[in-house]
Amino acid sequence: MDASQNCIAVYPGTFDPLTNGHVSLVRRAAKVFGAIIVAVAGDSHKTPLFSLDERVAIAEAVFDHDASVMVEGFNGLLVDYVRRRRANVILRGMRAISDFEFEFQMALMNRKLDRSIETVFIMTDYKWLYISSTIVKEVCKHGGEIRGMVPELVRERMREKYGLADLKKEA
Amino acid sequence: MDASQNCIAVYPGTFDPLTNGHVSLVRRAAKVFGAIIVAVAGDSHKTPLFSLDERVAIAEAVFDHDASVMVEGFNGLLVDYVRRRRANVILRGMRAISDFEFEFQMALMNRKLDRSIETVFIMTDYKWLYISSTIVKEVCKHGGEIRGMVPELVRERMREKYGLADLKKEA
Amino acid sequence: MDASQNCIAVYPGTFDPLTNGHVSLVRRAAKVFGAIIVAVAGDSHKTPLFSLDERVAIAEAVFDHDASVMVEGFNGLLVDYVRRRRANVILRGMRAISDFEFEFQMALMNRKLDRSIETVFIMTDYKWLYISSTIVKEVCKHGGEIRGMVPELVRERMREKYGLADLKKEA
Amino acid sequence: MDASQNCIAVYPGTFDPLTNGHVSLVRRAAKVFGAIIVAVAGDSHKTPLFSLDERVAIAEAVFDHDASVMVEGFNGLLVDYVRRRRANVILRGMRAISDFEFEFQMALMNRKLDRSIETVFIMTDYKWLYISSTIVKEVCKHGGEIRGMVPELVRERMREKYGLADLKKEA
Amino acid sequence: MDASQNCIAVYPGTFDPLTNGHVSLVRRAAKVFGAIIVAVAGDSHKTPLFSLDERVAIAEAVFDHDASVMVEGFNGLLVDYVRRRRANVILRGMRAISDFEFEFQMALMNRKLDRSIETVFIMTDYKWLYISSTIVKEVCKHGGEIRGMVPELVRERMREKYGLADLKKEA
Amino acid sequence: MDASQNCIAVYPGTFDPLTNGHVSLVRRAAKVFGAIIVAVAGDSHKTPLFSLDERVAIAEAVFDHDASVMVEGFNGLLVDYVRRRRANVILRGMRAISDFEFEFQMALMNRKLDRSIETVFIMTDYKWLYISSTIVKEVCKHGGEIRGMVPELVRERMREKYGLADLKKEA
Repeated sequence: MDASQNCIAVYPGTFDPLTNGHVSLVRRAAKVFGAIIVAVAGDSHKTPLFSLDERVAIAEAVFDHDASVMVEGFNGLLVDYVRRRRANVILRGMRAISDFEFEFQMALMNRKLDRSIETVFIMTDYKWLYISSTIVKEVCKHGGEIRGMVPELVRERMREKYGLADLKKEA
Repeated sequence: MDASQNCIAVYPGTFDPLTNGHVSLVRRAAKVFGAIIVAVAGDSHKTPLFSLDERVAIAEAVFDHDASVMVEGFNGLLVDYVRRRRANVILRGMRAISDFEFEFQMALMNRKLDRSIETVFIMTDYKWLYISSTIVKEVCKHGGEIRGMVPELVRERMREKYGLADLKKEA
Repeated sequence: MDASQNCIAVYPGTFDPLTNGHVSLVRRAAKVFGAIIVAVAGDSHKTPLFSLDERVAIAEAVFDHDASVMVEGFNGLLVDYVRRRRANVILRGMRAISDFEFEFQMALMNRKLDRSIETVFIMTDYKWLYISSTIVKEVCKHGGEIRGMVPELVRERMREKYGLADLKKEA
Repeated sequence: MDASQNCIAVYPGTFDPLTNGHVSLVRRAAKVFGAIIVAVAGDSHKTPLFSLDERVAIAEAVFDHDASVMVEGFNGLLVDYVRRRRANVILRGMRAISDFEFEFQMALMNRKLDRSIETVFIMTDYKWLYISSTIVKEVCKHGGEIRGMVPELVRERMREKYGLADLKKEA
Repeated sequence: MDASQNCIAVYPGTFDPLTNGHVSLVRRAAKVFGAIIVAVAGDSHKTPLFSLDERVAIAEAVFDHDASVMVEGFNGLLVDYVRRRRANVILRGMRAISDFEFEFQMALMNRKLDRSIETVFIMTDYKWLYISSTIVKEVCKHGGEIRGMVPELVRERMREKYGLADLKKEA
Repeated sequence: MDASQNCIAVYPGTFDPLTNGHVSLVRRAAKVFGAIIVAVAGDSHKTPLFSLDERVAIAEAVFDHDASVMVEGFNGLLVDYVRRRRANVILRGMRAISDFEFEFQMALMNRKLDRSIETVFIMTDYKWLYISSTIVKEVCKHGGEIRGMVPELVRERMREKYGLADLKKEA
């Protein structure tokens, strides 16, 4: 039985912003797959807090020392991007049942669009269950402390965006 | 970015019996991971239809020509078995939301017991959504036709177990 | 557009015991479908409180004056029974999300076994949401009052079974 | 037991666009109920891709040869429309647990508004589980192939809307 | 064992509008906790039907005779408001599984932000299961009768907002 | 507004065995309610690992220094027990959606049986999400380490029950 394999997993998302939940997942997945591409989605239904360029730059800075992690922005259909990168795995985190059905539907649809690509799921660690990009923005906007929920770089950039940088610099 | 990696995924289950849903999942996973060990669980709360030896023998026959798939029975704690096999991934299929929370709890517990082992999930293809080992046994026991739901070998052995072999051999 | 149709719906279940939730559902469905057959399942994994004959007799007594409702016991595969009765609809009540996936799987499987038979669902009215055969037995066994949760005949028979008939006859 | 009955079921929805999942459901339901009215909802919270007139015209074209299926646009409260059509059944498809609670709440509310109207559910066939109007629009907009997911007429009209008609006419 | 305790529970929400489900919950909770503060949230993602001042005024009128219930508007982070009021309990109603995960995430996040504050849940009574602020607005807007679903004062104010006051005053 | 109140909450369960999740919940609830009665249920469908007397004794030892926590065994209907103790609150922990519907049904039923008793829920802290009495027994039985998942006293008693005491005393 030969277990050597070249496997690139694409981890797509909006990452607006990147949270410690995302970072933890990428690093755990990097021990399973040969390489991870963090694929930052360009178009979204909502106006993002950070632009695509900002989101890519932040993720690049955070994963700078992770040898098997690459960051890239993408637009259009995910399966087309995965094919262009010659990857065969889409990686998704799952945090809650409410994620399940949407993820299930997307996985079935992506399999319909390209049967050579598999979607693979990893559960978010319990430490990050209460964190999502949305809730972190909500808390930060209202002046709540988000240290430990996002990388320090993200925390600084979010406080700038919400005009909180000067208020609590000393905190 | 170097994507070569040696990765063995253990796919644990009772497989009483092995269904086409299981077979499909193993073959899809074999394209993602270097090698798959189908790990047939010896102890169970319920009296199985097939003994551990029978279940191992059936799985070995079904995966006989799949070069990267190995079959083995195991007893005791799953993470201990995974360690003994020097594997780093537990593979689980997910078919329904009702699976989700049990799987989530098990994944968290196994991570607590050994943080070097990751649990990875693949969604059952929609073609096999209505199939489970339990429902297949229920249908077969009442004389329903299970062709196409399980490998032909399993179908024959189940009909023998339920004393249906002679009744409908011609069907 | 011609809307006349002959439609017989089979409502299968263990009915151990029949609750007011079941009775309400049958009567609502009788306004939708031409005829309802309450099909009392003979075999079950658990030892029932009432025998098949008792469960059929109780349902017959309760639906005695409902002209379009018939009661019958059955064994074996449900779709075989439905075919024997020349019915084309299986009727199921849904009370909770935890029912949903099992019902979904059963509906898909029954459709696989016979595509001419449709499974149709009606939601339990909110008045009966807290009632199930299991919880009613649990409450009655511990001496709780189940009046209004089951037909009066069922209440009397349950109290006999649990040896409560003399204790609280005056209540 | 007399099983003849006149039964008209109203199948309400936005149908923006009509998918093969909708079409399959209507045709299955037409074997259960005497007549089906596909009731296309005029008002919606979101700006639709197709106008009400376009959606009605598409549905009429698709169900042109289905003798017991009628198509009509409607505005206002659903139960008022059902009453105006002298129907007694609201038909809904269910695809996923995430549909369940909204559907349950709507069914309870409609029952509160008019107790003579029953809501009846049919499960989407597993072949169409991964399809929804929303996901089909998403895929088409990004240039993905939606053949086999919607009626061919819908596919053509969607490609026109998204300005894809010339790009891939030859595909 | 000494069971005397001073306990103030904050019941936060948008209350746009206050329904009989909310009123019932507050009154049940008032028997458990020493005092309830109905905390009307000022900012929301959607434009509300009633302004913050209107929502506070309506709730004050409805709970005018409930000695242990106080009403107040608030802005900003909920845990900051709870602390300012020297309360230690956040009270939330739960009506459906779809509420569960959002509530769970919020409860975990609020616990992260301030471990001295506990979130406590009470189930909505089955009589109010089909009612939400959203569905009541939807029904009223389309001319449906909402008597018995909201306090009479709310019903009158909603009919004014939707320009229905003159049409059915006699109803 | 006067917030003083005498409130006794009954926390019922089988506690076979008591886990750190239970202990954490009781201590958090003790800050909300005046007094907590840990009510150990005598009858159960399954044969317990520890007898009722053992389970009561263990809980008493664990909560020995918690002044506002009392432990007692009970049999029969929960609402009858709650009334006998002159309590007005049933306290339940919630860990997962799969708990939700059973808990909802029980809360509605208990409210039907006695409207003066309220059921109140607290979410399990994320640290204990992966722990249940069942999974802890499963892990311990197979020789897995359960330190940190249950009180040390429980761990010792479980290892005795499973005959592991001598094997790994040195571990």
